[in-house]
Amino acid sequence: MAGTDHTQVSRALGDGAAPTIILVEPQIGENIGKVARAMLNCGLTEMRVVQPREADWQTGKATATASGATIVLEGAREFDSLEAASEDLTFLYAATARPRDMVKVVLTPEEAMVDARGRIEAGRRVGVVFGPERAGLVNDAIAFCDAVLTVPLNPSFSSLNLAQAVLVVGYESFARSSRAPSRRLELGAGEPATKRHLLGLFEHLEAELDDCGFLRVQEKRPSMVRNLRNILGRAELTDQEVSTLRGVIACLVTKRKRS
Amino acid sequence: MAGTDHTQVSRALGDGAAPTIILVEPQIGENIGKVARAMLNCGLTEMRVVQPREADWQTGKATATASGATIVLEGAREFDSLEAASEDLTFLYAATARPRDMVKVVLTPEEAMVDARGRIEAGRRVGVVFGPERAGLVNDAIAFCDAVLTVPLNPSFSSLNLAQAVLVVGYESFARSSRAPSRRLELGAGEPATKRHLLGLFEHLEAELDDCGFLRVQEKRPSMVRNLRNILGRAELTDQEVSTLRGVIACLVTKRKRS
Repeated sequence: MAGTDHTQVSRALGDGAAPTIILVEPQIGENIGKVARAMLNCGLTEMRVVQPREADWQTGKATATASGATIVLEGAREFDSLEAASEDLTFLYAATARPRDMVKVVLTPEEAMVDARGRIEAGRRVGVVFGPERAGLVNDAIAFCDAVLTVPLNPSFSSLNLAQAVLVVGYESFARSSRAPSRRLELGAGEPATKRHLLGLFEHLEAELDDCGFLRVQEKRPSMVRNLRNILGRAELTDQEVSTLRGVIACLVTKRKRS
Repeated sequence: MAGTDHTQVSRALGDGAAPTIILVEPQIGENIGKVARAMLNCGLTEMRVVQPREADWQTGKATATASGATIVLEGAREFDSLEAASEDLTFLYAATARPRDMVKVVLTPEEAMVDARGRIEAGRRVGVVFGPERAGLVNDAIAFCDAVLTVPLNPSFSSLNLAQAVLVVGYESFARSSRAPSRRLELGAGEPATKRHLLGLFEHLEAELDDCGFLRVQEKRPSMVRNLRNILGRAELTDQEVSTLRGVIACLVTKRKRS
């Protein structure tokens, strides 16, 4: 759908402006690349990797699966421990299924990223920690984190791969930071019709409907007119569309008047 | 993280209880399998496929990438057109990037799934329509749908693969229907401490701190006590943890008293 403009990415994302993603003991290079791609999709650029199994994790197969998210992969840093990887961070979310036998706050991705946004806006840096592909985070790592982040999923089929888990977290992070309107009307090249133009359409239609007899029953006329205006109003017409509809009416009328 | 319990899935999900996923002209069988997996992760079970390119889409490579989501793959149905695939549905969301030159309502995945939930609870069936992997939906298909669903992503790196796009939609669908609390304290085997037990801990600690001289400056004592109680209170302790902390205090005191 789009290429990569590194300048734009760097400009948009200052250091610490989004959560750092920490991968603990990732087993497969391809997965690290897929994570890099999912991160960049969501405007996350800082990846830290703790004891990856493959020595060439940064230059090997990950470069292919990153699908161009090289800015993330090249900037990633390797650490010996989760503790070392999080030295400059103030709050860690452990991405894992519900912890057992541990007293811990559990947040949805949405709530965690709302929380993270608050910390980031206060000038603090936070991280989200993901465990190895198969086993997930060990209890000691979960205990070291401040809260657990669990993706609510179908309880009878909840296995999510690493890049998908990162994507869900990144998606929520981006949604909380971008403040995109949740609903908007895409107008293409058009502009919303003014009420004056809209009224012109209404009156044009109603005059023709009077003329052809559609509105002849006078006691029903007001409610019919209201219904028609509601239908057209709900469509949130553009100027161009108002003109189009007036053309439609004119054309239909011509045909009737001819026949 | 978990296996598949077909009985539980079927019980939880009545027909039409979640959006139908419609894949228009999917090119690669593996992707159909990955979509099936992402769907089941999120409790979506009804897949419809319009003119898939591979004849063995249901039995070929998709079975491996579905990773056990066979209930979705086996139940999927094939259609000749989007129109035929949506005959019994009342509202279609076209999953695509922002449409050009078209006047159309554009919703975030969250808003679209809130909207879908309302329609489903009113007894109506809805679908989310995804186009071919590379090209996406053609304009005629978008125009046939009622609204556009666009995932807000990094504008300079917004390419998402098919299964990931389905996952984001499914994740929102599940989040809107599951009503999972966005924050909860996982207690393991414990129970939240009663205020009586908590007060016992506070007073135990404060008595010992009085005894050892930590609270000897009388004008500072009230605020220090408040701070300590705040710290312990914020931890939302369980009964067991209160006992543990009292043990810790007792033990520390013993050591000091001995030395």
